[in-house]
Amino acid sequence: MAGGVGARFWPLSTEAQPKQFLDVMGTGKSFIRATFERFLPSVPKENFLVVTSAIYKAQVMEHLPELSESQVLLEPMRRNTAPCIAYASFRIKSVCDNANVVVTPADHLVTNTVEFNRIINKGLDYVSAHNSILTIGIKPSRPETGYGYIKQNCETEISEIYEVDSFKEKPSLDVAKQYLSDGNYLWNSGIFMWNNNAILSEFKTQLPNMYADFEKGESVYNTTEEQAFIDNLYPACQSISIDYGIMEGAESRCVIPADFGWSDIGTWGSLYTHLEKNENANASVGGKVVFDKSSGCIVNIPADHEAIIEGLDGYLVAYYNKNLIVCKLDDEQEIKNLVEKLK
Amino acid sequence: MAGGVGARFWPLSTEAQPKQFLDVMGTGKSFIRATFERFLPSVPKENFLVVTSAIYKAQVMEHLPELSESQVLLEPMRRNTAPCIAYASFRIKSVCDNANVVVTPADHLVTNTVEFNRIINKGLDYVSAHNSILTIGIKPSRPETGYGYIKQNCETEISEIYEVDSFKEKPSLDVAKQYLSDGNYLWNSGIFMWNNNAILSEFKTQLPNMYADFEKGESVYNTTEEQAFIDNLYPACQSISIDYGIMEGAESRCVIPADFGWSDIGTWGSLYTHLEKNENANASVGGKVVFDKSSGCIVNIPADHEAIIEGLDGYLVAYYNKNLIVCKLDDEQEIKNLVEKLK
Repeated sequence: MAGGVGARFWPLSTEAQPKQFLDVMGTGKSFIRATFERFLPSVPKENFLVVTSAIYKAQVMEHLPELSESQVLLEPMRRNTAPCIAYASFRIKSVCDNANVVVTPADHLVTNTVEFNRIINKGLDYVSAHNSILTIGIKPSRPETGYGYIKQNCETEISEIYEVDSFKEKPSLDVAKQYLSDGNYLWNSGIFMWNNNAILSEFKTQLPNMYADFEKGESVYNTTEEQAFIDNLYPACQSISIDYGIMEGAESRCVIPADFGWSDIGTWGSLYTHLEKNENANASVGGKVVFDKSSGCIVNIPADHEAIIEGLDGYLVAYYNKNLIVCKLDDEQEIKNLVEKLK
Repeated sequence: MAGGVGARFWPLSTEAQPKQFLDVMGTGKSFIRATFERFLPSVPKENFLVVTSAIYKAQVMEHLPELSESQVLLEPMRRNTAPCIAYASFRIKSVCDNANVVVTPADHLVTNTVEFNRIINKGLDYVSAHNSILTIGIKPSRPETGYGYIKQNCETEISEIYEVDSFKEKPSLDVAKQYLSDGNYLWNSGIFMWNNNAILSEFKTQLPNMYADFEKGESVYNTTEEQAFIDNLYPACQSISIDYGIMEGAESRCVIPADFGWSDIGTWGSLYTHLEKNENANASVGGKVVFDKSSGCIVNIPADHEAIIEGLDGYLVAYYNKNLIVCKLDDEQEIKNLVEKLK
């Protein structure tokens, strides 16, 4: 899934170049490229499908030149994750009767790819033998309020995999602290695994209209008529997330707790926590930065740019493509509104 | 005089594009262009001479296309203002026996050009009739510590012009306050007027070696051999300012007090005082800026750029040509050192 708009990383992320195509960590690889490479030990390159907005097709092909154009599924507009996954599931069905599938956002960070692939392979083994919807749950390291949580049923373990007791919305800080001390709550990574027939069966039961709409195209998937069919279908599609549409009500929901250095890097603050800091806890990505009388700052500028940062404590400073922001990290939730004011 | 390097306006000013070629006020005109246009009511365009570094010749011609190349005198290296003025004076002598001259920096701000031209014309009238070195002294509006001062002899007025009692170095704040309350101290604008024979006579008396060196070229000024002569002469030239070399010891020194909205715009802070502010005392030049929870800031970005400034009080934020600075205005004297650290 690579259709996100990533408004919170302005000015690096814009509608024209959302987060999945950026290298906000300064690793030399965009998120989508790093995601692709992370899965390669477990998934042959011809088995990847990227679902994205039509406007990002060229960028996907540029970042993932190993893929053929037929591997990039183009949504004519945003309709949240359920239609995106329904589309991909019907496409997969048209080429493979019994595929095991991993669904993942294309803009997350993972630092331990060996453990990541071990978890993916264990999960794929599980869903190939069980008619179950499997989520990767991240073992929490702090009372994070920016993630949804999964409560695991600790008495149900089979080979590291547990039944899900319930899915939880983003909590308040007090609730998040309680979750952390309880020890049986995991962060919802948004990475799912299932057998393709299992998820199609869930769509048929829980989102029957959506299922019926996509089923009408069974004869056109993987043909030259597919795009026209999708372009015609999408505008009327219900915009709903896979979490609300499917996960909450699925017949068999499992979770595999994991600890492979994961972050969704959803905010500048979370990016800051993952970067190397200097002696005054300042972090920078890109070009040379001279810090003076400053601490706890994150600076992101292009590699061939230079910056002087003087007298700032706890700020974000970012410049990209003629757009500049200086903002207290504590106030970064305001960025989206302030970007609106620029328009 | 347009040879300055303007290091304090980094990143707008750089050695490749010093302050005189910039439009830091956002008026649509560079300082050198505005200076040229300001003098046009009093001085025919063919009478201008620009003394600058050889590396800035193309930029001068671009900003002042009305000038011929012969009006741009090129210094092969910086040697402060006395050699610059000696060179121009000998060039003037070669084409006009009895010229009245105004010497001015090319990177100052004047807001009342009518009053400016009135003062210039009054001064030129005076020096055409008196063998005197005349300085424009600015009536001080605040106890500024960034300017040199001129103490006028208040009992000597002739048609708005006074004898100079003494020149004063940049004062401490206490001394500046005393100057302001005394009422007979003026800011030294660095704008001088004289008859060309008067200044040459002062050079002959006070800087006889420099005078002799430039006099050796009397046959080559305004010929094709002039540049080679200057290029050969300059390396050994004494580097000294006109203030120390000539003003302090001149036989007859006068000052004309003036009030035409002058600033040397020598710092970001002085630029800030001259810009229009919004309701929270924020000023910006160039592209659109959204301020939030901010006050007393100055932001300078290119006209086609945009910026969000959140949570800053009393800061400079400037971006130009791949270089970015965020700095407390109170600390702006550090900028020069911080730029050195980038190198």
